[in-house]
Amino acid sequence: MKNIIIASTSTLSGQKYLDYLLPTLELHFQNCETILFIPYARPSGISHQGYTDMVQLAFAKINKKVVGLHEFDDATEAIRNASGIFTGGGNTFVLVSQLHKNNLMNVLAETIKNGTPYLGTSAGSVICGLTMQTTNDMPIVYPSSFQTLGVISFNLNAHYLDPDTSSKHMGETRETRIKEFHAYNSAPVLGLREGSWLDVKGDKIILKGEFTARLFKQNQTPEELETGTDLSFIK
Amino acid sequence: MKNIIIASTSTLSGQKYLDYLLPTLELHFQNCETILFIPYARPSGISHQGYTDMVQLAFAKINKKVVGLHEFDDATEAIRNASGIFTGGGNTFVLVSQLHKNNLMNVLAETIKNGTPYLGTSAGSVICGLTMQTTNDMPIVYPSSFQTLGVISFNLNAHYLDPDTSSKHMGETRETRIKEFHAYNSAPVLGLREGSWLDVKGDKIILKGEFTARLFKQNQTPEELETGTDLSFIK
Repeated sequence: MKNIIIASTSTLSGQKYLDYLLPTLELHFQNCETILFIPYARPSGISHQGYTDMVQLAFAKINKKVVGLHEFDDATEAIRNASGIFTGGGNTFVLVSQLHKNNLMNVLAETIKNGTPYLGTSAGSVICGLTMQTTNDMPIVYPSSFQTLGVISFNLNAHYLDPDTSSKHMGETRETRIKEFHAYNSAPVLGLREGSWLDVKGDKIILKGEFTARLFKQNQTPEELETGTDLSFIK
Repeated sequence: MKNIIIASTSTLSGQKYLDYLLPTLELHFQNCETILFIPYARPSGISHQGYTDMVQLAFAKINKKVVGLHEFDDATEAIRNASGIFTGGGNTFVLVSQLHKNNLMNVLAETIKNGTPYLGTSAGSVICGLTMQTTNDMPIVYPSSFQTLGVISFNLNAHYLDPDTSSKHMGETRETRIKEFHAYNSAPVLGLREGSWLDVKGDKIILKGEFTARLFKQNQTPEELETGTDLSFIK
């Protein structure tokens, strides 16, 4: 049975890394002593080890050990044998490139579908969708494919932002960008605001946190979904 | 001799499409009766013809005709024979995909290098750089390559935005994203604010408009460059 936390962001403004999620994670990873961390997204270009050290500090607060995927000779086996997995945020193009290059996309999807508890934040959440095509990140490397894990049946936009009606900036709003996605693609897109997360247990996908989420479907008016809603109808 | 206008945006807040640039464009395209428009970037998924009609309305104010590249059977010949070319903004992934798919990237670069007056706005400007890897757009389609025209020796970030120090949003700032680009790539990146443009005449690249531009070089502190500066030193 799938057991996944898909969070819009790792960190809330004025808080420490993962702090707002720790009570949820304590329960989510209750049967894991050690969590396998996938550091590939490298925010601000931090090293794999530097990123893993940062995550270790946060998880120490709930008495969990963290080991980085880069420390294993056989990454496929490391994923298969993990008792819990966390993929952190950073650049989605870098993350997806590395997962494809190391032939890990399918084994990670299978492992999650088989029930290994998984946590994603930001880019680590975006990869839970069908493709990475609704990321906000810059294409700083060229991935061999945009296909991602597909452990949920729609795409995600993390750090979802409402249009700023007072802004004089003429760059596209997030909503306009997602509308452009739907000129070429039919997958629904869920805009997940910072502080929201999805709690996936088997076939149920419950929206958590205090905010609504914004659902974009091709050729339809976007709609706001209340926290607590089961989103498993989105396909 | 290269003769290029590379503008951060087509439109300023509260103004009509291209209005702020029209005096510049009247001079830039003084010897062109008809401008060839490349509508591939399709902002908000608008049709090629709908986009071309919109551009025609703006250029009618300076008595220029506009014809869309999609109207020609032989796009390569259309580019070679054009007396002036404009590539409009929209989605950079869509624009670059179409240019590569139709084998037009090289012929467009050659034509511009040979002196045909060119105007780019937003995505149409980003493609003047070495690669499209510093675009702000969503990867809504998968291009066969990120390589672009390379008619200037650096990359561009259009619609450049300074960090909003009052914001509680935790998504990466533009500066952070460009720093991540430089973890993997050495090309300099110029952040061009809305209302700024580059006036390229042969080997000279003059920054125009009222704002400074922000130059990011790998492993160096970013610097602000004054309007009027010749940027041909950036390589």
